[in-house]
Amino acid sequence: MNARLIALDWGTSNLRASLLGEGGRVLETRAAAGGVMAVPEQRFEAALSALAGDWIQAHRCPLVASGMIGSRQGWREAPYVECPAALARVAASLVRVELAGGPTLHIVPGLACIGPDGQDDVMRGEETQLWGAALAPGSCCVLPGTHAKWAWMGEGGTVRAFQTFMTGELYAVLVQHSILGRLMQQGHARPQAFEQGVELGLSEHANATHVIFAARTAGLMGRITPEGLPDFLSGLLIGIEIGSATRHAAPASVAVLGDEALSARYETALSLAGIGHRRVRSDATTRGQWLVAQAAGLVDADARGAT
Amino acid sequence: MNARLIALDWGTSNLRASLLGEGGRVLETRAAAGGVMAVPEQRFEAALSALAGDWIQAHRCPLVASGMIGSRQGWREAPYVECPAALARVAASLVRVELAGGPTLHIVPGLACIGPDGQDDVMRGEETQLWGAALAPGSCCVLPGTHAKWAWMGEGGTVRAFQTFMTGELYAVLVQHSILGRLMQQGHARPQAFEQGVELGLSEHANATHVIFAARTAGLMGRITPEGLPDFLSGLLIGIEIGSATRHAAPASVAVLGDEALSARYETALSLAGIGHRRVRSDATTRGQWLVAQAAGLVDADARGAT
Repeated sequence: MNARLIALDWGTSNLRASLLGEGGRVLETRAAAGGVMAVPEQRFEAALSALAGDWIQAHRCPLVASGMIGSRQGWREAPYVECPAALARVAASLVRVELAGGPTLHIVPGLACIGPDGQDDVMRGEETQLWGAALAPGSCCVLPGTHAKWAWMGEGGTVRAFQTFMTGELYAVLVQHSILGRLMQQGHARPQAFEQGVELGLSEHANATHVIFAARTAGLMGRITPEGLPDFLSGLLIGIEIGSATRHAAPASVAVLGDEALSARYETALSLAGIGHRRVRSDATTRGQWLVAQAAGLVDADARGAT
Repeated sequence: MNARLIALDWGTSNLRASLLGEGGRVLETRAAAGGVMAVPEQRFEAALSALAGDWIQAHRCPLVASGMIGSRQGWREAPYVECPAALARVAASLVRVELAGGPTLHIVPGLACIGPDGQDDVMRGEETQLWGAALAPGSCCVLPGTHAKWAWMGEGGTVRAFQTFMTGELYAVLVQHSILGRLMQQGHARPQAFEQGVELGLSEHANATHVIFAARTAGLMGRITPEGLPDFLSGLLIGIEIGSATRHAAPASVAVLGDEALSARYETALSLAGIGHRRVRSDATTRGQWLVAQAAGLVDADARGAT
């Protein structure tokens, strides 16, 4: 089967490459620790060649890259597209990088959004996943992670608005560098401690910088075991996130788009919040990259659709 | 003038010793990096001797210690006294440690409190400062710091309730270990960026784990300079704290008890929140230690009072 597109999911830590055939079908995938912050001296072309030089030589097909590679610290800056953002507008704003030997790399711009608080918010990479997820107008979608994103979709596949929550990074820095980590013992999952954390985070989301201290005091007082404290804090932070993101209007259902373990945590927490949820197809990233390439005319529209 | 009491403010990082005379007057002070976490192999008696062995020898007066020295990681655990907590009850619960050579060290227990969210909260050392601050019944007092405390006073000098906010530690770990520190440049104070952060934190306190991300995006978008970002984040976190602590009932005025620079920040932020404030006398710690010793009968009641 002929390769039609090399799709790159190029984030802060990792570079994932997928070779896509007709209709966006995934032919082969590869990954390396070649993320934007991991490539020495910003030698991005060398990192790309090392991972997928043979594909580029053999197939001479276009390349599309989404993620932090389009940031100021990346290969070439792709200015943010403002929300509400339609796929067609993003596809018309791809930033071209000519590679040695002929083919062109097309960098997908991220999105910017001014929230109800008047602050800017930004995403890079998640917009492509959102398009790949084929969400209905009016949908709400959460993408758990280091910087979790909540996105609200508008008509015609536009991303209407989104908000970032520092949940994953907060968890990491609090466990590794704050007093909350001191009493913790890492080990097996403690689902009950997680659920206690979620309930507390949901009800006390408006008091976040106080209530996280419960991950110390509950340990001091013996209410949560040292083995339960990591999950208690995880639940607390996810509960705070869900309570905050849905405080003005709780959606009937939230689409969850992320890796298996983290998505399962969010689904448990959403259930405790009385909010429905459904999992988004796991190929949302490559599907989104294919749709961007299609909208930009880099690959033929395919009436049969993907899969 | 005769020494009557050796008062130790023995925290996590530092050990501060004050020699007190009649009426609690401060005769001399000393400090060392001999905090609970800084003393090798919990050799607390050696650390005390190194700093104040000559005082102990020369004056043979009682010693009172407040702070983390009474924690499980300290010299001897002094179990928490539950709120509402009166000075007399705490004075009756001092934990005695007999020192080599005769004199006795009396460790002041910390306080515990179950909040409206059903979670335990704890303090060690601040309770002694609160008593030294001579706050009126119904007062609200904030003690800024690594773990900022808000305390509400009841009748007869009791500590009715309190809440911890992880403001100081959050600031430190976010600046040093999170993506928020990446764009920052430390330098001179930027009062305007601080005030912008406070306003945002006050209005968006219920969305804390989202709104702190503004300390990245405001930098990315050039709305706050790299030199302004540290103060912007400081303002954000203090605004979130004040917004959260006063969300159910804003006090007319808050007493501020802490070091000069941090207290000034809180006073600016309280003014922006429309809340009055007054500074607590700077000798609250030694004054509180003296009052505890007096209530425990370790020193004579002094009709003249201290200064």
